Amino acid sequence: MSEQTNVIFIGRKSVMNYVLAVLLQFDAGADEVILRARGKAISKAVDVAEIVKRRLYQDKVEVSSCKIDTEEVGEEPNIRKVSTIEIILKKKE
Amino acid sequence: MSEQTNVIFIGRKSVMNYVLAVLLQFDAGADEVILRARGKAISKAVDVAEIVKRRLYQDKVEVSSCKIDTEEVGEEPNIRKVSTIEIILKKKE
Repeated sequence: MSEQTNVIFIGRKSVMNYVLAVLLQFDAGADEVILRARGKAISKAVDVAEIVKRRLYQDKVEVSSCKIDTEEVGEEPNIRKVSTIEIILKKKE
Repeated sequence: MSEQTNVIFIGRKSVMNYVLAVLLQFDAGADEVILRARGKAISKAVDVAEIVKRRLYQDKVEVSSCKIDTEEVGEEPNIRKVSTIEIILKKKE
């Protein structure tokens, strides 16, 4: 009954690796899957979302939210700022 | 009186190049600036948006929309699909 949060962090693996991870979450009954990425992996997160939406779950999954933000990484005195993205994929009713 | 559309296509130039282009549009009186990018330039578009929002127009500019999509590029029979992003930066009242 409790709502699960299914967050997938997009990193250095191949796009299809993450597409598969999303599929497994949806197949396990998740209503939504959250993709998070930062820096250069942002483009990959968008690819993953688009492949899931267009090729695998045509018209059955939609992007319900797409937010960008900035995070600080590293430790003093070497803190740097990096852009992030959060894409929420949601099953349509 | 007419509303202008101010679209900046993010490509191979440096991030600061595009940040400057956004500044020039806002300084010229634009209420909103639209960033478009595809493929690997998507990460750069997010960087541009975040730098404008956080460093240059703190709390005066917001991301009013962030949409992802897929475009087809190339000609038959070599059409391939590429992910795109559209980020709308808007001056707050």
